[in-house]
Amino acid sequence: MSPKNITRSVIPAIDLYCRKANFKTLKSLSMILGSKKEWYDTKKAPLRTFLVSRCGIFEQLRGRLVEDGKVNLFSVFLTNDSFSFCKMTVDDKFNTSLVDWQKIPFDSTFATDRRQNISLLPVDTLFATEKIISILGVSPNMTNLVSIERERSDLVDFNCKLQSNILEHLLYAKCQGVYVTSTNEKARLLAAVCNPEFIDTFWCELTPIRVSLKENPSISVPREYQMYDPVVRATIKEVVTKRLLRSAFDNDIDPLMCLHLDKGWKLKFPILSSTTGLNFSLKDCLSLDTGKDASDMTEVFLATMESSKVLRTYSNLVDIVMKDNGRLDSGVLKQFNDYVKQEKLNLQHFQAGSSKFLKGAKI
Amino acid sequence: MSPKNITRSVIPAIDLYCRKANFKTLKSLSMILGSKKEWYDTKKAPLRTFLVSRCGIFEQLRGRLVEDGKVNLFSVFLTNDSFSFCKMTVDDKFNTSLVDWQKIPFDSTFATDRRQNISLLPVDTLFATEKIISILGVSPNMTNLVSIERERSDLVDFNCKLQSNILEHLLYAKCQGVYVTSTNEKARLLAAVCNPEFIDTFWCELTPIRVSLKENPSISVPREYQMYDPVVRATIKEVVTKRLLRSAFDNDIDPLMCLHLDKGWKLKFPILSSTTGLNFSLKDCLSLDTGKDASDMTEVFLATMESSKVLRTYSNLVDIVMKDNGRLDSGVLKQFNDYVKQEKLNLQHFQAGSSKFLKGAKI
Repeated sequence: MSPKNITRSVIPAIDLYCRKANFKTLKSLSMILGSKKEWYDTKKAPLRTFLVSRCGIFEQLRGRLVEDGKVNLFSVFLTNDSFSFCKMTVDDKFNTSLVDWQKIPFDSTFATDRRQNISLLPVDTLFATEKIISILGVSPNMTNLVSIERERSDLVDFNCKLQSNILEHLLYAKCQGVYVTSTNEKARLLAAVCNPEFIDTFWCELTPIRVSLKENPSISVPREYQMYDPVVRATIKEVVTKRLLRSAFDNDIDPLMCLHLDKGWKLKFPILSSTTGLNFSLKDCLSLDTGKDASDMTEVFLATMESSKVLRTYSNLVDIVMKDNGRLDSGVLKQFNDYVKQEKLNLQHFQAGSSKFLKGAKI
Repeated sequence: MSPKNITRSVIPAIDLYCRKANFKTLKSLSMILGSKKEWYDTKKAPLRTFLVSRCGIFEQLRGRLVEDGKVNLFSVFLTNDSFSFCKMTVDDKFNTSLVDWQKIPFDSTFATDRRQNISLLPVDTLFATEKIISILGVSPNMTNLVSIERERSDLVDFNCKLQSNILEHLLYAKCQGVYVTSTNEKARLLAAVCNPEFIDTFWCELTPIRVSLKENPSISVPREYQMYDPVVRATIKEVVTKRLLRSAFDNDIDPLMCLHLDKGWKLKFPILSSTTGLNFSLKDCLSLDTGKDASDMTEVFLATMESSKVLRTYSNLVDIVMKDNGRLDSGVLKQFNDYVKQEKLNLQHFQAGSSKFLKGAKI
């Protein structure tokens, strides 16, 4: 029987249409699925294999969303003395509600035996991990995806590096495939490792910066700044976060991102009602102490927002490839290619919206 | 009511009698409970607090042994490319049977996605940890204590150090307080971190070495060798392991250690039937490739053997302090002091049995 007549389940169908798409489309697909990393060769196979493996996680989440009507998305960012996390709930219309968003220092309550800090004893790292999970507020009644990221800096000493590495692996192990309560018939807690490169690419890489940097009074030599500079990316990410907060606060829900803020959240951001546009500091808005705190909180906010958007893009893609039970169909292939191209343009258009704000940003 | 008339449960009773004992007795107690480390001051309180916390683990195990009639003791030694483990089952008469004893390389079966080695991705370290636990052979029908140790060497590069640290913490987290099956009414899997200093002290520190080292033809300057030299300790530990194997093999069960080898094990050690005394190489006996392998296997064997012996010593101590429901009684205090003194002498006598074998050992 020719490939055309075989019906396929979702992942084999996605794999099939990825085989039929060209390399350019696959690169666009990796961008819109928040999975874009540097590919140093132009062969399709490795990129396709990587993408299909990423789709495995999205497919599990998509299935749960269909079954339960909503999922919880978490992102956790570990540093050596604190963790930041963001929690969003996504419904089956892909309306995304901010539920929790905090930066919490690792104080003595994260250690055992009256120690002031988390020691490198397994009893302490386990205790701290279980405490982090208890603070997240995972729900036994729906699926909770926890994506985990840790600070990656060479300036940190060995023990600090060891601690955040160990907590990352423990958090993954204590989340991946866990049945939150013994009555769950399936694992309610799933884990994924979050790659900072994916977040930066998803929110920054298509953002035009040249013109704005030239007009930014605080920059003397604009051409010294490139897109791969961490400080440029951090600035763009903070702009994106403020844009999403502003549109959600003003009920001008961004059509691409669909973030909603309920009344409770609006009361927490009084600065948004006393200012317009992005004329507010994220640090003050979130009552944080330092710019570093704001950047950690930006990281978890955008990682969770990205997961929500990618889940929606992926679900639409599934609807396309499964139009005829996963059979290969030229019309469906065309829709597949067109959808990927359109979503890339949408993301490009969204990212372009950040450019003008770089003129006034303190980089 | 004066302290004399209050009844106490086990740990408060142990704490009480430790308060009444002198510093010397507490140091001996820490030795016979495999918990001796360097104390740089002579105040009782820190040593007592540390000992009572150690007793917390033994008490949990003792209780399980009384309830179930037997417990499984495991020791795991992690290096960057392998793990060694030993499994012994102890019955309520403290007969200790060797059940499993292996060194297993971390080959591609410990990695995911067709990787050749365990990567530092959380998905891989979790997979490897779960594979280690599946190989141990924990039983859902009794309590399993897994004590975990890792290679501590400065010669290992950062990523290798990171991997064995992460596996240590993950193994602890995936064992500590785990209900092996959903039908277990209590946690069947307990974990503890094993301190190599405790093992060395328990098996070596009281061993006279001077005379034997002088008579050892392979040593030109005997006084250069001290008890704290790793190579001296490694040699003593290998001697002790061979002594215990020899006495168990010959059914001349050591009264202090009570190790039994069943027929299956005797068939695995043909070298023991073709030799006498300790005239055999542990490496060959265990069909290992290198001396390093033999030393890793010695480490887990002695760690498990120590756990068994300490559990027995602790249980006897409990019988003494609970003679009158934990009430303070001068007669019981005398028995407490005498028992600690006698057990220290027994250990000293046992360790002395290793000395003569140092004459011929290759150090």
